[in-house]
Amino acid sequence: MAVSPFDDPLLSGLLGDEEIAPQFSPEAGFEELNYFEEALARAEAEEGLIPEAAANAISLACAAFEPDAALVRQAATRDGVIVPEYVRQLRERIGLPHAAHLHFGATSQDLIDTSLVRRLLPVVAIFDTRLAALVSSLDDLARRFGGNSLMGRTRTQDALPITAADRIAAWRGPLVRDRERLAQLKPRLLVLQFGGAAGTRDKLGAKGEAVARRLAYALGLPPAPAWHSQRDNLAEFAAWLALVSGSLGKIGADVALMAQNAIGEVALAGAGGSSAMAHKANPVAAEVLVALARHNATLSAAMMHALVHEQERSGAAWTLEWLTLPQMVITTAAGLRTALALLASVTRLGARG
Amino acid sequence: MAVSPFDDPLLSGLLGDEEIAPQFSPEAGFEELNYFEEALARAEAEEGLIPEAAANAISLACAAFEPDAALVRQAATRDGVIVPEYVRQLRERIGLPHAAHLHFGATSQDLIDTSLVRRLLPVVAIFDTRLAALVSSLDDLARRFGGNSLMGRTRTQDALPITAADRIAAWRGPLVRDRERLAQLKPRLLVLQFGGAAGTRDKLGAKGEAVARRLAYALGLPPAPAWHSQRDNLAEFAAWLALVSGSLGKIGADVALMAQNAIGEVALAGAGGSSAMAHKANPVAAEVLVALARHNATLSAAMMHALVHEQERSGAAWTLEWLTLPQMVITTAAGLRTALALLASVTRLGARG
Amino acid sequence: MAVSPFDDPLLSGLLGDEEIAPQFSPEAGFEELNYFEEALARAEAEEGLIPEAAANAISLACAAFEPDAALVRQAATRDGVIVPEYVRQLRERIGLPHAAHLHFGATSQDLIDTSLVRRLLPVVAIFDTRLAALVSSLDDLARRFGGNSLMGRTRTQDALPITAADRIAAWRGPLVRDRERLAQLKPRLLVLQFGGAAGTRDKLGAKGEAVARRLAYALGLPPAPAWHSQRDNLAEFAAWLALVSGSLGKIGADVALMAQNAIGEVALAGAGGSSAMAHKANPVAAEVLVALARHNATLSAAMMHALVHEQERSGAAWTLEWLTLPQMVITTAAGLRTALALLASVTRLGARG
Amino acid sequence: MAVSPFDDPLLSGLLGDEEIAPQFSPEAGFEELNYFEEALARAEAEEGLIPEAAANAISLACAAFEPDAALVRQAATRDGVIVPEYVRQLRERIGLPHAAHLHFGATSQDLIDTSLVRRLLPVVAIFDTRLAALVSSLDDLARRFGGNSLMGRTRTQDALPITAADRIAAWRGPLVRDRERLAQLKPRLLVLQFGGAAGTRDKLGAKGEAVARRLAYALGLPPAPAWHSQRDNLAEFAAWLALVSGSLGKIGADVALMAQNAIGEVALAGAGGSSAMAHKANPVAAEVLVALARHNATLSAAMMHALVHEQERSGAAWTLEWLTLPQMVITTAAGLRTALALLASVTRLGARG
Repeated sequence: MAVSPFDDPLLSGLLGDEEIAPQFSPEAGFEELNYFEEALARAEAEEGLIPEAAANAISLACAAFEPDAALVRQAATRDGVIVPEYVRQLRERIGLPHAAHLHFGATSQDLIDTSLVRRLLPVVAIFDTRLAALVSSLDDLARRFGGNSLMGRTRTQDALPITAADRIAAWRGPLVRDRERLAQLKPRLLVLQFGGAAGTRDKLGAKGEAVARRLAYALGLPPAPAWHSQRDNLAEFAAWLALVSGSLGKIGADVALMAQNAIGEVALAGAGGSSAMAHKANPVAAEVLVALARHNATLSAAMMHALVHEQERSGAAWTLEWLTLPQMVITTAAGLRTALALLASVTRLGARG
Repeated sequence: MAVSPFDDPLLSGLLGDEEIAPQFSPEAGFEELNYFEEALARAEAEEGLIPEAAANAISLACAAFEPDAALVRQAATRDGVIVPEYVRQLRERIGLPHAAHLHFGATSQDLIDTSLVRRLLPVVAIFDTRLAALVSSLDDLARRFGGNSLMGRTRTQDALPITAADRIAAWRGPLVRDRERLAQLKPRLLVLQFGGAAGTRDKLGAKGEAVARRLAYALGLPPAPAWHSQRDNLAEFAAWLALVSGSLGKIGADVALMAQNAIGEVALAGAGGSSAMAHKANPVAAEVLVALARHNATLSAAMMHALVHEQERSGAAWTLEWLTLPQMVITTAAGLRTALALLASVTRLGARG
Repeated sequence: MAVSPFDDPLLSGLLGDEEIAPQFSPEAGFEELNYFEEALARAEAEEGLIPEAAANAISLACAAFEPDAALVRQAATRDGVIVPEYVRQLRERIGLPHAAHLHFGATSQDLIDTSLVRRLLPVVAIFDTRLAALVSSLDDLARRFGGNSLMGRTRTQDALPITAADRIAAWRGPLVRDRERLAQLKPRLLVLQFGGAAGTRDKLGAKGEAVARRLAYALGLPPAPAWHSQRDNLAEFAAWLALVSGSLGKIGADVALMAQNAIGEVALAGAGGSSAMAHKANPVAAEVLVALARHNATLSAAMMHALVHEQERSGAAWTLEWLTLPQMVITTAAGLRTALALLASVTRLGARG
Repeated sequence: MAVSPFDDPLLSGLLGDEEIAPQFSPEAGFEELNYFEEALARAEAEEGLIPEAAANAISLACAAFEPDAALVRQAATRDGVIVPEYVRQLRERIGLPHAAHLHFGATSQDLIDTSLVRRLLPVVAIFDTRLAALVSSLDDLARRFGGNSLMGRTRTQDALPITAADRIAAWRGPLVRDRERLAQLKPRLLVLQFGGAAGTRDKLGAKGEAVARRLAYALGLPPAPAWHSQRDNLAEFAAWLALVSGSLGKIGADVALMAQNAIGEVALAGAGGSSAMAHKANPVAAEVLVALARHNATLSAAMMHALVHEQERSGAAWTLEWLTLPQMVITTAAGLRTALALLASVTRLGARG
């Protein structure tokens, strides 16, 4: 056990995701902050807001800049966010006379929110790929076992015989729609955040729009009006994460019920062992899908609460997002990974013999 | 106080919605069941599955049929759903020999789920209209007060002066996107549910698809594969309801903060009175928006849990939806209604004097 | 379906509770307000704060006073609470010169919170009685079937044979502890709320404590410091409600799994019927217990959010309680009622034959 | 940002707790498993269930045993729990002929649950100490500033003047009761879990009770009937954690409102800095308390869902606890730590000048 199983060296193989988790490492975070500051300086130099020489110095300083993490940690405890100390250290590195031009017209939230979105870019692509792979995997199961008989059960009781294909279709439908939903929400989610101190790009005067466009282009994101206090796109994404996890949870619940000894409607290779009973073959992956579904279901509520984001920046609501969204991403990642492994381990679906 | 303030004769003016609530009345429900059974019989007669005479008799019996509610209530306590007793009484009304053809190939869930969707049809239209009205109302406020100065506040502290228009834009953005989201989810949500006992339309043989198409047409819904155990469209809708409520909650929180006596950045006509302090003018509507936001945020989690819908019908997960979704709809309805009233009551926004 | 199934004429037999629900009726509410105002006037007269004649007039007016509900509803929509208009009407009934002495030193929250607590008094007693009955019922099942063999299952797989008594003991333990918990929280929960406009009993001067003591005595509650903005006792009670519902949910989940046709470890009299399949005997009560458990689990979070109750009275947090707590009470009530019926319907537990 | 801010090297100073977090480290976990196995072997040897020599060999092997973490991680991914591989490696270390006597009559859950409880023992003591310190700190504030005037505010509006002492009393009350609640729940929470494969201590025959007693004594916990599928004590503790966090959240919300520039009812030393506005003094600690309150409020629901723990062990419900409870503990720890720092930073409370 650890504070978060997702970070735990022992449990993150079961409950975490090695491909996605690195996106939330401090290193990945600092790298993003560096990209942002460099791109911002370039954009501002191009718009004549800061000297070209300053942009060059900033660019040079940002290359592989790794701040003193201990100092950042210490300052974050006071400031509530890592950016002020990061900027201070980066300014130190840049030195006079250019340091003052760093971070011009930007605020902590611009860096943190945009860096989050940038890291969600590959995450979202991977999720879509995994969903497609799951759909393929289900299609494959349908080809192999679709004609097998299965007892259709309603309210836990035997109802009528159905086929394995019928059950598989019920697993498949939501995943196809989840891909459709993702395609629809992506243009809202994956956009630049850049608003400055109070969201109005006040320091940039008439150049605000132009800087934002250049910055967005450099960071590979569409520009957008500042959304510092409009958190609906993140909450919508969180709901999507819970939708995916929940639909995988249904697969898990069904498989666990099918795997009951007295039912035997599924055979799984490599099921889990027990410390007390050598004969056990536990449908661990199926159970994990249910646990992950309920975890994300619960957490999704917090992102809805975080919509009540007061004024131009609510430290309370913003911090609540940090406590919630990264673990929701990993919960979904782990669910997709686990579901793929579970389906790949199916050696029989439907009637025995 | 009442079990639900939404049903409470004293509080449903504050927290409920008179336009939407009737959709959840028993009368509206029975009317929908009648429509379904009549349309099903017609469709099946047209496909030659039941005699034309039976369809006529069923149609006649369905006209304004009002079952004995006391008996329905009693049976629902045993059956977990109102349909079996409703069908029994309707069969009695139809009489021999046609009664046996009623409900042919259908199951309780077909009636309950489809009747829910049919009632969501006008709800969703009303919500879209109200969102549009809110956007207009915000545009109107921007025209009237947009140039007024407002203190931009971050982390509760004075940051920089902004304009009322800036704040209004932050309120407006999510509502515009919520309309966009609604347009995208509607084709998923507003579809027929028709699957029969185990979701396979087993009794209809090769005519399943054709009956579903006719039934859907008669009920004004697109046909769709049975989604009896695929609850993602309802959960997605619930998340949307929470998104709307949450974004209205931000407006409420902001207005309540602006209405503080020491701040005075907003003036509201007709604020609430106190039983103890005659001088009070409470921003009740603003507070209600926050309460409704948190209520829907909380409830949305339950709809995500209900995605873990085992096998072909989970009585547990389905019942959980009944406990959750209707009150989420009314929470959103009340929020939209209250937000419209709140914005209409604004007599000044931004700097006093 | 209805806004709340607990208020629905068709579903409240399944999901509601006829013994407890009346506590949340408007009539019960007004009766409590009358008691409060009468007791307050008496207490204040005895302490010399208002004339004896005023107390008599108030007492007379409070006898079976039923305010015009339509006007109360209308005013509550503006004031956010029913009390100001209730007080206005009651003052009208009292007439001059005594009307001014009504409600002296009290505020809406005193009436609403205290009337809630007073109504929880019998609720809590009934819950304790039902828990005791459940424990007895389990003891009875243990006597009748305890020696029967049951398959012990871990992670959904057959582990080792246990006895029905072992399983019953796992159902019983939490209920016994829930009674213990209830006994411990009752002294915190069941106390008077009386603080006046800002919680300081400001208008009563040195007599505040004495009036509170007399008022508490008359209302059958211990006195306590004002807790208008300290909501922990209500949130603790809500958590207790969810604990009870959750432990009943485990019983329900177990019984539903035991009732599976291929398992057959339990036989239930009077199981639910289906509209499509005459052969079905659905363990509806068991499923309902799971749904109620998940409903209360979800809702309990809202009462924890309501702890963030700003300043001397948060309209937002207080209103959130109204949306949450009454339905949590009924969820628990329905769970206890349903569990008693479920256990009473068991005709066999454990190995068949 | 990191998967969990509690584990994040940059943010765990702000949101984590250095004193409590080590309890959830893998090292602390393995140490507990070692204690358990050693104590179990000793107890079983004393009861004549395994040879004295085996107990000695086990004891020797357990001393500072650190399993190969990579292998444990890998196996946990399959088994769903770290214990089977831990036991395998420990058996290897013990060697023949004694290895077979290790873990006799125990199961994974005995080790994991008991090791959790053992680690909660110091946590709970620290929490109680911190609560006491908070109460002292509030008493100190009352002594220093209690007489200062403060505006009492209801529904966000100025109501009546109160004193700082009045507000402080509202903060203090719940914390005192939380200590009382903790004292009441501790005897339920802090007990041994020992049940074997299916909770019946089947392998130990008549010696089950005696072994449990000896094991409990050695581990410094009272014995108790096996509670492997009775999770109410953990859920009750989780609710307590949310109660504490919520009451601290009210303090945070109040302080943030008091710290508004236009209000200025509190002065804080060492408030947080901004990357964009040098003049800002953000009440970061106050905001963090609100975020932590909402995080624990949300998570507490999951522990209530986990009460629906099917049969003798639900992998799904158990895993859900792992995802939830440790972070709830740290959320509370961070809240207590932050509240202490916040109160210590108060240099003025109540009316300025």
